[in-house]
Amino acid sequence: MTNTPAVTLDDVRDAAVRIKGVAHRTPVLRSRTLDALVGAETFVKCENFQRVGAFKFRGAYNAASRLTPGQIARGLAAYSSGNHAQAVALAARELGTTAVILMPEDTPRAKVEATLGYGAEVVTYDRYTGDRVAIGEALAAERGLALIPPYEHPHVIAGQGTAALELIEEVGELDALVVPVGGGGLIAGSATAAKGLLPGIRVIGVEPEAGDDTKRSLRASRRISVPVPRTIADGQAADIPGELTFSLNRKLVDEIVLVGEDEIRDAMRTAFERMKIVTEPSGATPLAALLAGRVDAVPRRVGVIVSGGNIGAGRFAELLAG
Amino acid sequence: MTNTPAVTLDDVRDAAVRIKGVAHRTPVLRSRTLDALVGAETFVKCENFQRVGAFKFRGAYNAASRLTPGQIARGLAAYSSGNHAQAVALAARELGTTAVILMPEDTPRAKVEATLGYGAEVVTYDRYTGDRVAIGEALAAERGLALIPPYEHPHVIAGQGTAALELIEEVGELDALVVPVGGGGLIAGSATAAKGLLPGIRVIGVEPEAGDDTKRSLRASRRISVPVPRTIADGQAADIPGELTFSLNRKLVDEIVLVGEDEIRDAMRTAFERMKIVTEPSGATPLAALLAGRVDAVPRRVGVIVSGGNIGAGRFAELLAG
Repeated sequence: MTNTPAVTLDDVRDAAVRIKGVAHRTPVLRSRTLDALVGAETFVKCENFQRVGAFKFRGAYNAASRLTPGQIARGLAAYSSGNHAQAVALAARELGTTAVILMPEDTPRAKVEATLGYGAEVVTYDRYTGDRVAIGEALAAERGLALIPPYEHPHVIAGQGTAALELIEEVGELDALVVPVGGGGLIAGSATAAKGLLPGIRVIGVEPEAGDDTKRSLRASRRISVPVPRTIADGQAADIPGELTFSLNRKLVDEIVLVGEDEIRDAMRTAFERMKIVTEPSGATPLAALLAGRVDAVPRRVGVIVSGGNIGAGRFAELLAG
Repeated sequence: MTNTPAVTLDDVRDAAVRIKGVAHRTPVLRSRTLDALVGAETFVKCENFQRVGAFKFRGAYNAASRLTPGQIARGLAAYSSGNHAQAVALAARELGTTAVILMPEDTPRAKVEATLGYGAEVVTYDRYTGDRVAIGEALAAERGLALIPPYEHPHVIAGQGTAALELIEEVGELDALVVPVGGGGLIAGSATAAKGLLPGIRVIGVEPEAGDDTKRSLRASRRISVPVPRTIADGQAADIPGELTFSLNRKLVDEIVLVGEDEIRDAMRTAFERMKIVTEPSGATPLAALLAGRVDAVPRRVGVIVSGGNIGAGRFAELLAG
């Protein structure tokens, strides 16, 4: 028995070396209008500009690159209908191998096309009758593929932490860091990096009101499941925290705040009109928390991770039209 | 009589020193998807992230900061219904003085509000009966204000050139630079910087088809006026090149290409969906030129100046809906 956590700052630093030149070092945007609205100096790490349009590529590539050459040659697998699918598909291509992605039959065509576009094979299943974890594991075992999970893996979590590492390296001292929470991988990695570099930093997670499983779980000090959330923030529609991510987050995350659907829409509009950036609903939740006053006692210097921007122009217009 | 041009690389460098810490050093974005669509390594200088949402702040602030302390204290003036209005208003505020902005009576309320928001006074006139230049000059003379023109001034042009200067400092050698053309100030400054640093660079201007005054003028070797253009690219609705800007551009600009209205819309959509950035129609025209194949023999490394992103989410949706 050891007290070393499953993911450390050194793991995040190692991941940063591995993804260098493969993932984008995304820009940190400032906006004085945003600062005035939030009431703090706000530093926005734009993972919507990351490859595949979301932070997910960091973790997927880090995990894939740590496999043995033999494992890489046999190929990767993942189950995801979202950004992780494209992240694993692109990681495979970058490593010169193939990927098989398991997606629900009713996945929007654009997401299937994007995944195929990175050269992956897509296998579909019925989300109402099938268990994606079981099907994914069986598929990987049968074909000898390395399954890259969306968050329950130390290398995935370490990779996700590199965005916060880059942010703090670039801007220095921060009083707080505000991060979206879905399965918990992004915030676990972010908190590992942030508290490793700045022990006094306050790490604030943001969930949609309908998907407050991590907030409830932290309060109860055990993993609590909620009904499958109905929210526009589809990247945060988790119904229970991951085991590994929760074991990290219960030690590292200071608080979880919730945002409503209209607050998310308003933040997407503010990001569009004031910052000129495109955010998907999940990507906008940290801005929503700050803009809607969901964070108490906003400190002087706040980092925000905008986690993704994968949304079509038509869907964006629909959402903002209400 | 001297052969020294009205604006030199050194003037642009001086402007860069003056705007440092006041204007944003905007990021240069890369997107492999964009590279594949364009067929070249494409470096996008994001002036949509500039203060006031467009490159205009660079020139306005540079020109204003070069006034005497007495002139600054008496205040600034400008005539503009567009981004230059907000740029001069903000420049005045940054210099601790006031600005009076002359705007047409039918200017959209949001633009008036934004200008008032920077602390300026707005004076309106009837665009169908009044001559904005004459009214603006009379207003400035009467109140003792320093008029900052939108492009016909060496300090404004030098300021606009700092975006290209930063771009080339950051990414190095470029084979071509693609820039929107309205009155000609941005491209005159950009070409001065670019050809000063990289004598072999090809400078390509982009106009909307309806507003091809600079293309016609370069072909005729004299300033040609066209009917007031009807185009969604309102920042490029000039009907005749400026005298000063044309005298520079005829020596520095290699070619002008034209883009159609639907090509501009498609480029706005591509910028949104693939690059996750918000562009106003004028800001998207250089991307439109590259994406629609309007540039012949696209070279290996291309710089693009996305000049602005001031557009409401509702108007954006309307335009993309057709």
